Amino acid sequence: MSEIEILERHRVFGGEVSFVRHTSAAVAGPMTFSIFIPDGEGPFPVLYWLSGLTCTANNFTEKAGAFRRASQRGLIIVAPDTSPRGASVADDAGVDLGQGAGFYVDATQAPWKPNFQMETYITHDLIAVVEANFPVDPGRRGVSGHSMGGHGALTLALNNAHLYRSVSAFAPIACAMRSPWGIRALSAYLGTDHAAWEHYSAATLIAEGAVKAFDDILVDQGRADPYIDSHLMPQLLEHAAAASGQKLTLRYHDGFDHSYYFVQSFIDDHIDFHADRLSPARSRPAHEAA
Amino acid sequence: MSEIEILERHRVFGGEVSFVRHTSAAVAGPMTFSIFIPDGEGPFPVLYWLSGLTCTANNFTEKAGAFRRASQRGLIIVAPDTSPRGASVADDAGVDLGQGAGFYVDATQAPWKPNFQMETYITHDLIAVVEANFPVDPGRRGVSGHSMGGHGALTLALNNAHLYRSVSAFAPIACAMRSPWGIRALSAYLGTDHAAWEHYSAATLIAEGAVKAFDDILVDQGRADPYIDSHLMPQLLEHAAAASGQKLTLRYHDGFDHSYYFVQSFIDDHIDFHADRLSPARSRPAHEAA
Repeated sequence: MSEIEILERHRVFGGEVSFVRHTSAAVAGPMTFSIFIPDGEGPFPVLYWLSGLTCTANNFTEKAGAFRRASQRGLIIVAPDTSPRGASVADDAGVDLGQGAGFYVDATQAPWKPNFQMETYITHDLIAVVEANFPVDPGRRGVSGHSMGGHGALTLALNNAHLYRSVSAFAPIACAMRSPWGIRALSAYLGTDHAAWEHYSAATLIAEGAVKAFDDILVDQGRADPYIDSHLMPQLLEHAAAASGQKLTLRYHDGFDHSYYFVQSFIDDHIDFHADRLSPARSRPAHEAA
Repeated sequence: MSEIEILERHRVFGGEVSFVRHTSAAVAGPMTFSIFIPDGEGPFPVLYWLSGLTCTANNFTEKAGAFRRASQRGLIIVAPDTSPRGASVADDAGVDLGQGAGFYVDATQAPWKPNFQMETYITHDLIAVVEANFPVDPGRRGVSGHSMGGHGALTLALNNAHLYRSVSAFAPIACAMRSPWGIRALSAYLGTDHAAWEHYSAATLIAEGAVKAFDDILVDQGRADPYIDSHLMPQLLEHAAAASGQKLTLRYHDGFDHSYYFVQSFIDDHIDFHADRLSPARSRPAHEAA
């Protein structure tokens, strides 16, 4: 399972970015991710970046401008594809379901179930292949993402706090079970099991607040984002954090939209946020030592 | 001629980037460029960026990561398409001729002549539409580019030193008349008129050195660039500069290839190079005052 094929490799700033293909048991087929590795000996902390609807491993890698700061901070960044792909994988004509729209859930319904196991892919198979092949420190993982990938970062981190030490998001779908995009995807992938829907709704997980494993959650949101009211609803994160006492740093930015022009404008702050928390000198929050 | 249509507009770092369509008399049809404008009053100095083979206005705009530094330095950046396009425009099946491969020359041969007037487009129509519609200071223009666009930046600046105060390039085709890409393009666009070929060959223009309008020319070149020996031949720039006494800062970078990962890694240095030379406080070289 940890056999890899390097598709491309490029020197960039003080490091190298590669595109890597491997076979995932979880999604029963090939998956592609990019990985930026800074110069030096390692092992390095790693930030997993989860992209939004329609994206592949390329969008963040080519457009986010993240590798300048990542090489300065000595941070590996891994950006996987957003779903399994191929002629044998189920798909839908819409952009919000099927290939390019995995929503980071483990599907239970036909025809999605055989391949759309993206929670298990990200939290198990991807971590395994990265840690078996690259100089990452297994104890130092963060996760971030954009839009559907911001939803993915928040929900996977909150459901798997033992795996990740830091979490942030750009313009996330704050509560998939209340977003039209999310409702369509969760209906298809999970059927009518609303307990499963809650498991994949970030605001609900924050409001439940059983485990506050994260000292802070950083979220950036553009005020000129055309999806802010219809699909993203960042205020639900604020309400949830206030209800449970989870610290949330939610920053609104006038004029910024939903594009990678927005992401690139604030990516350095997120890299710093994660690098600070993934520093070996920094201990985990006290309540986690129990 | 200066009527424009804004196709897209995005806030990015401390400014805005737009995609703009207008009609060019020179190429007898519509052209598209991107323009980044920093916040503030202006008028601002402007850097024209010329892209390489197959590129549109998007490649640099999305992948170069230039707008962080440009907003810090108060620099407008304009990135035009590399050729006229459309069903009525001549084309070729290869990537090195026709649409996406204008080579910044004014074609004299059929079927290219009616539309492929890219030198006149860049040095006249583009400057006119930009200066009529955006807060640029007409006296403060620089030009840079990548690969075919590096060739374009060098040749257009050397042939039009009254228009540009600074010039740099990434991995330029150093001498189009000696590069297989260039020979194919110049043959098609200019026929057998070798005086015209010399007019579009940067190393030849530097070696002639009649006018040394530029205090320095900055060129970055990756040593892992697969085209370095076959098409780019940077040593021809070194020889030419040594012959004429033109100052040239040619920097080789181990491990870097021909991609925008290379460009983004050194774009800040080029923005600084131009911004320093386009500062209003800086006088033009003494010999130009004559």
